[in-house]
Amino acid sequence: MKKLIVLIALCLSSQVFSQTDEDVLKQIYKTALVEGKSYSWLETLSIDIGGRLSGSLNAERAVDWGKAELDSLGLDKVWLQPVMVPKWVRGAKEFAYIKAGSGVTTNVNICALGGSVATNPLGVTASVVEVKNFEELEALGEAGVKGKIVFYNRPMQADLINTFSAYGGCVDQRYMGAVEAAKYGAAGVIVRSMTLNIDDLPHAGSMTYEDLPVSKRIPSAAISTKDANLLSTMLKLDTSLQFYFKQNCKQLADVKSYNVIGEITGSQFPNEYIIVGGHLDSWDLGDGSHDDGAGIVQSMEVLRLFKTLKIKPKHSIRVVMFMNEENGLRGATEYAKEAKAKGEKHVVSLESDAGGFTPRGFSFDCTEASFNKILGWKPLFEPYLIHYFIQGGAGADVRPLKTDSNITAGLRPDSQRYFDHHHAANDTFDAVNKRELELGAASMAALVYLFDTHGI
Amino acid sequence: MKKLIVLIALCLSSQVFSQTDEDVLKQIYKTALVEGKSYSWLETLSIDIGGRLSGSLNAERAVDWGKAELDSLGLDKVWLQPVMVPKWVRGAKEFAYIKAGSGVTTNVNICALGGSVATNPLGVTASVVEVKNFEELEALGEAGVKGKIVFYNRPMQADLINTFSAYGGCVDQRYMGAVEAAKYGAAGVIVRSMTLNIDDLPHAGSMTYEDLPVSKRIPSAAISTKDANLLSTMLKLDTSLQFYFKQNCKQLADVKSYNVIGEITGSQFPNEYIIVGGHLDSWDLGDGSHDDGAGIVQSMEVLRLFKTLKIKPKHSIRVVMFMNEENGLRGATEYAKEAKAKGEKHVVSLESDAGGFTPRGFSFDCTEASFNKILGWKPLFEPYLIHYFIQGGAGADVRPLKTDSNITAGLRPDSQRYFDHHHAANDTFDAVNKRELELGAASMAALVYLFDTHGI
Repeated sequence: MKKLIVLIALCLSSQVFSQTDEDVLKQIYKTALVEGKSYSWLETLSIDIGGRLSGSLNAERAVDWGKAELDSLGLDKVWLQPVMVPKWVRGAKEFAYIKAGSGVTTNVNICALGGSVATNPLGVTASVVEVKNFEELEALGEAGVKGKIVFYNRPMQADLINTFSAYGGCVDQRYMGAVEAAKYGAAGVIVRSMTLNIDDLPHAGSMTYEDLPVSKRIPSAAISTKDANLLSTMLKLDTSLQFYFKQNCKQLADVKSYNVIGEITGSQFPNEYIIVGGHLDSWDLGDGSHDDGAGIVQSMEVLRLFKTLKIKPKHSIRVVMFMNEENGLRGATEYAKEAKAKGEKHVVSLESDAGGFTPRGFSFDCTEASFNKILGWKPLFEPYLIHYFIQGGAGADVRPLKTDSNITAGLRPDSQRYFDHHHAANDTFDAVNKRELELGAASMAALVYLFDTHGI
Repeated sequence: MKKLIVLIALCLSSQVFSQTDEDVLKQIYKTALVEGKSYSWLETLSIDIGGRLSGSLNAERAVDWGKAELDSLGLDKVWLQPVMVPKWVRGAKEFAYIKAGSGVTTNVNICALGGSVATNPLGVTASVVEVKNFEELEALGEAGVKGKIVFYNRPMQADLINTFSAYGGCVDQRYMGAVEAAKYGAAGVIVRSMTLNIDDLPHAGSMTYEDLPVSKRIPSAAISTKDANLLSTMLKLDTSLQFYFKQNCKQLADVKSYNVIGEITGSQFPNEYIIVGGHLDSWDLGDGSHDDGAGIVQSMEVLRLFKTLKIKPKHSIRVVMFMNEENGLRGATEYAKEAKAKGEKHVVSLESDAGGFTPRGFSFDCTEASFNKILGWKPLFEPYLIHYFIQGGAGADVRPLKTDSNITAGLRPDSQRYFDHHHAANDTFDAVNKRELELGAASMAALVYLFDTHGI
């Protein structure tokens, strides 16, 4: 009899919610696919605004646009969080060529890496030494490197199924290449673009000089993979060939910018936060549609879906458009600092920053107990062909929010096409598929709903 | 002691094979991704040959190309299997406009459906009646339909996650629309294109007149989704508007064509066949890269991978390039007929005909016992992010080979982008991603390897 009462009580309690998790997820996916807004938002952000490097006029316009759109959603709060960001400018288009011993020159496609110094105004001409890694560089030493251009040419590994693993295995060349080569007196650095495609596009991205004095900083640029292959082949035939490149990029003083934040205040736990976000800044060569316009509009869509479906969350749900992920992470740092100062408890922080491709699942940085609980939700996602739940790193913007007890998480879309576009001139709106983008937004909303309903 | 002997025997036996299934799959995926040939094959088939409608010169060229490429692989046998195929030709580009009551005309994008008759040489002008399905058509009856153009405008359902389900729910309009409308004396048929995109591209595809006498056959065309929306909106404002279209397509006499077949003869069961295939013909508007150039080159790659990795199969492994899937299925019918006549036992027939997108899994038409055995292989595929194993229909070309005891199967790639390109002018090489295509080929090779090694 007691069991029966419990059973009836359970039935009644489930009637109070009146909808099962399955039903809510179905509504979320249906609404995102049939009357979603993420794609038209992305069209505006990508086409009307475009590439939005931190500190640029376009980044300012993106902030204004983001706030205006959030204002229109009827959220409980929308605000701008000020943050000082670096302002690096590319300047005039870079120019580079290979000069063979015969004197014949072949133009190649390069772009200055973000944060790099300019060459001198007339450009740098030097012979080239090709290396695959820092060990080879060290073995060459000052005798082999001084006065030369170091050409880092270790390709991304094509047999890794997750292309982010292939990226992770190569990006040290781009980020640390200049500081390592400068140790041996190199005149400059050329880095093979971080892509698996063999094409003509140089891929930008950040690099560092660490604490190198300004006088020791050497210019650093990415070269397209096709031209990297060409340079490597020509070097094998003629080690005395010369490489010329000119770039007039510049690091200016920091400028004021903003994170854009919107909130639906929780009905039961208003001071406990589940946040969804992406980064509003992008590189400047394309329009930043995949990196990370997609994450921005998907995060906005999560809150819009909650409003449209009249889901009243127990926790406060925030969308955070982080500023300056690409070359400083200042927005994320500032957001985490203020959250800590105010004692805001961030229970779950979910980022989308891996492109607007078909979602395959999520990665979670969390306790074993939380992960096991999350694994229990896998069947709810299977109708949407979401199968991939792993413990692993979340996005860079939510990492500063990690504590021992909370969860940071990342949407994991299909990664095959991501590095075809990453930081390059073809990261543009036409490379985003409407349904793939919408499925990602729906998957994020579904996960947020489950966290809000069932806790962590 | 007995247990120890068994254990040693097991170790020795596994050493005889010298490689575990995991190792072989790793080699298959690595070879496909690092030194695959499928993408460069597709480039030739798509760019150098192009769209290859059954009976066309391009289809002939594709047959010659396919045979030459198979000849170069060092297979045990390569041959052409003759088959008579229909030859339908589009003729001059179609032309259509909406004429408002005011007399103002608006051009719209249409294409004749495959198998349709021409309009009369001056075109058809008639008023339009819009229906969503055959029930609405029947309700209108002859009084509402006679002399008019029937406009089928039921859209694909966007909230279905698998876009093939959405296609399946609509394609009756295209295939049966003319024969149904002719019953009530319609002057012609315009069908909303089978795509979830709202764009300007009409999507071709086959239609039937069943046993309708030639004199009763009415012309049938697809209209782009954007123009379907326009026509529907204009009709709401002005039911008396006129629609004009002109097409001069034609059904000619059947011509001789071929299936292209290559074989690695099995070492233990030479008269038991595992086949992989796709269809060599395509529609004519694009170059047929996804439908089904991808399936062709992936199937070729399966046999090339076996040769490259020196895997000597126990069963005979065949690649079959089926002719005329799109508008007749003559190649598949002939292949199955001859296989039956010769008593060739087809244990597994695997088709790739759903585009060259990231593979998600396979569908199997097989016994429960076989399916359970296959499910046991799922962990082998997880490192390659293949999670989706279902019982369901295989491709059209392998269906005629189905028996009670054998297996037909289909590769299941991600379906989100497929109908953006399906049968339209943008089914072109640039819409195929190299790695996605290669992962599909590797997945097919892996499955074939497991069937060959472990049986069904």
